[in-house]
Amino acid sequence: MYKFADWTDDIQHSMMRRLNRHFEGIDDFLSLAGGLPDPDLMPNVPLAEAAQKTLLEQHSTALQYGGNRQSLKEHIANFMQQRGVTCTADDLEITIGGQQCMSLTTKILLNPGGTYAVGDLSYAGIRQAAKSLRPNVLSIPIDPHTGLDLDVLEQHLKDGARPAFLYTVPAAHNPVGVTMPLEQRKRLMALARQYQMLVIEDDAYGFLEYDGEPVPALAAIDPEWAIYLGSFAKILSPGIRLGWVIAPKPILEKVAIAKQMQTLSPSPLSQHIVDNYLSDNDFPALLTQLRTAYGSRRDVMMDAIDEHFPAGVTAYRPTGGMFVWVQLPQGVDGIEVMKHAAAQNAVGCLPGAAFATDAVAEDKYQSNLRITFVRYNEERIAEGIARLGRTLKETI
Amino acid sequence: MYKFADWTDDIQHSMMRRLNRHFEGIDDFLSLAGGLPDPDLMPNVPLAEAAQKTLLEQHSTALQYGGNRQSLKEHIANFMQQRGVTCTADDLEITIGGQQCMSLTTKILLNPGGTYAVGDLSYAGIRQAAKSLRPNVLSIPIDPHTGLDLDVLEQHLKDGARPAFLYTVPAAHNPVGVTMPLEQRKRLMALARQYQMLVIEDDAYGFLEYDGEPVPALAAIDPEWAIYLGSFAKILSPGIRLGWVIAPKPILEKVAIAKQMQTLSPSPLSQHIVDNYLSDNDFPALLTQLRTAYGSRRDVMMDAIDEHFPAGVTAYRPTGGMFVWVQLPQGVDGIEVMKHAAAQNAVGCLPGAAFATDAVAEDKYQSNLRITFVRYNEERIAEGIARLGRTLKETI
Repeated sequence: MYKFADWTDDIQHSMMRRLNRHFEGIDDFLSLAGGLPDPDLMPNVPLAEAAQKTLLEQHSTALQYGGNRQSLKEHIANFMQQRGVTCTADDLEITIGGQQCMSLTTKILLNPGGTYAVGDLSYAGIRQAAKSLRPNVLSIPIDPHTGLDLDVLEQHLKDGARPAFLYTVPAAHNPVGVTMPLEQRKRLMALARQYQMLVIEDDAYGFLEYDGEPVPALAAIDPEWAIYLGSFAKILSPGIRLGWVIAPKPILEKVAIAKQMQTLSPSPLSQHIVDNYLSDNDFPALLTQLRTAYGSRRDVMMDAIDEHFPAGVTAYRPTGGMFVWVQLPQGVDGIEVMKHAAAQNAVGCLPGAAFATDAVAEDKYQSNLRITFVRYNEERIAEGIARLGRTLKETI
Repeated sequence: MYKFADWTDDIQHSMMRRLNRHFEGIDDFLSLAGGLPDPDLMPNVPLAEAAQKTLLEQHSTALQYGGNRQSLKEHIANFMQQRGVTCTADDLEITIGGQQCMSLTTKILLNPGGTYAVGDLSYAGIRQAAKSLRPNVLSIPIDPHTGLDLDVLEQHLKDGARPAFLYTVPAAHNPVGVTMPLEQRKRLMALARQYQMLVIEDDAYGFLEYDGEPVPALAAIDPEWAIYLGSFAKILSPGIRLGWVIAPKPILEKVAIAKQMQTLSPSPLSQHIVDNYLSDNDFPALLTQLRTAYGSRRDVMMDAIDEHFPAGVTAYRPTGGMFVWVQLPQGVDGIEVMKHAAAQNAVGCLPGAAFATDAVAEDKYQSNLRITFVRYNEERIAEGIARLGRTLKETI
């Protein structure tokens, strides 16, 4: 009876969201599935103080319409030095989290039916953001040790492929966990410049590297060909829904206008609260605290994996981020393992197929799992791995 | 050097935003231009209490990822009775203000190059929301006494026009201020049903009617063919960035998915704060207080207009909302009046052309102004009109 736009004919929630139903109503369920940061590590009391200042002293701007909050942009430009990026407040736009970064940048760069490049494993959000444009996707394999397979990418470019952009998560890749080494980063940005291909760098996990000095962002290597997407979700709070885009001026101007078309502005209330929080607290100390806590949880998870996983299962140790990528023996179906884990052992994980960019990748990664080590304390993490180990012994 | 999506070739900020530069750096400037509610009427102290409860007692959900907050949806469904709409929490989706309502509903209903219908005068946000789809626009005249010209609309439909939707602001229209009478509403919804045309009802001002019983929403008359857009911007705070869509199930499902693709979810933090505010305070009393204050300001403005505006200028008294629509003598250029008012008399207004849907309408409404009576207290409103009266005597 109702007529919808054609692109909505096959719209559905992401596979990740649809799989969630397998996790519902299970007693003492312990989820290593979703990418949820630990709320106990979010500074709610200082944020409550920041909210008081906002609502009692700044309400005439915080509760009113508004654009980017200048002093928040200055804070962000300042702590971006931790990623090797030198920029000023004028080089960035505040957005409604990383997802709006993706929907805005795809919207201004991609024509309907156009082509973009992305890892054959990827955060589903980019596919969701681009979906209404019914794009062609150039799928690039992900190597669990070095990230995007640049040989394959270069061959496509040599063969004449001209994607509107490449989307990538070079730091602590979701779902594989791999951080692209500096050499590969330099080679990627040299390719970007040579073929005039914009690289959308989703750096959601860039501030969460646990083993020594972090690798600089792609935007630090070549700011002319990188569009940097940042987010407070993993380093302060996802519920505040704030992120940022750093891009060359001509791109940033279009992002700003597209943003107004979509939602007017990110919440002035949230912007004031985070701005006050950053002014009145030691944010670098919070980042250090998160790195210490999550790095230690990563170690606990890897040790527990050594103890509980059966032979023939490989888990890749990430240097940062939130995820461990698990390779099951060939032929074992990750979706079946996930269902068994939830129903029999009350533990959640996600199958590799949930992150596959296309049907080929769904097949290629059918024997993989993604698990996360950030949601719980160390004891619960170890318990989760024990349950998952039991599952693996029962199913493979 | 960079390649952008084709639609961005002529992208620019809305005319309203571009005109703002004329208002900058003027001493003692008094703006009757923007549609900004009065922050002194926003309940910042109760909101601060709601924020404390949120951040000290509910932070594990408020700071985490999340979807719609169920109890907030229940509050909204409850107070929608004031608009004659009977619905439950399941009939609505929470959004990031009215603008996201527009960008989501256009996105799921309109194909690239498709056609939608809208008043020849309209809030610019709908044009912005639809712009990337490069649509054709069926422009329907607005009558300052009854709203949309339904004879013209019906003729188009009879002649075979099949717009993907009609967008309209039936309550206290922006910019004309007119509230569509019940008879016209019934006729509009009968046409909608007859021609299977969805009507997007932007009811941003629906809770702000000052003269007795409000006319029921279009969604109360025919919920099957109306998509209701609500917003907290004008009745609580724009800075909180929350709105809602009420629509038939098949439409609502697609809105929910498109929303996730665009921004994941509206801020869980904002949702908790507003939910707590609504639970712990008397929101209907706030609405009454707003109606009393704004209604009285409307009266003050109309009285001051009688006193200060020269003969030959007509101002239409609205029954609700925020705006008075002014008709200048034919041939007088509203943009020139606006510039003179700002530069010479330190008062802001907007020209009718800023709300024109197309070039024909820009011409048709070149001798109009929109002014608002909600931003300031009564004394300042009267002073603003005295200044504008002076301007009119100097320019026409």
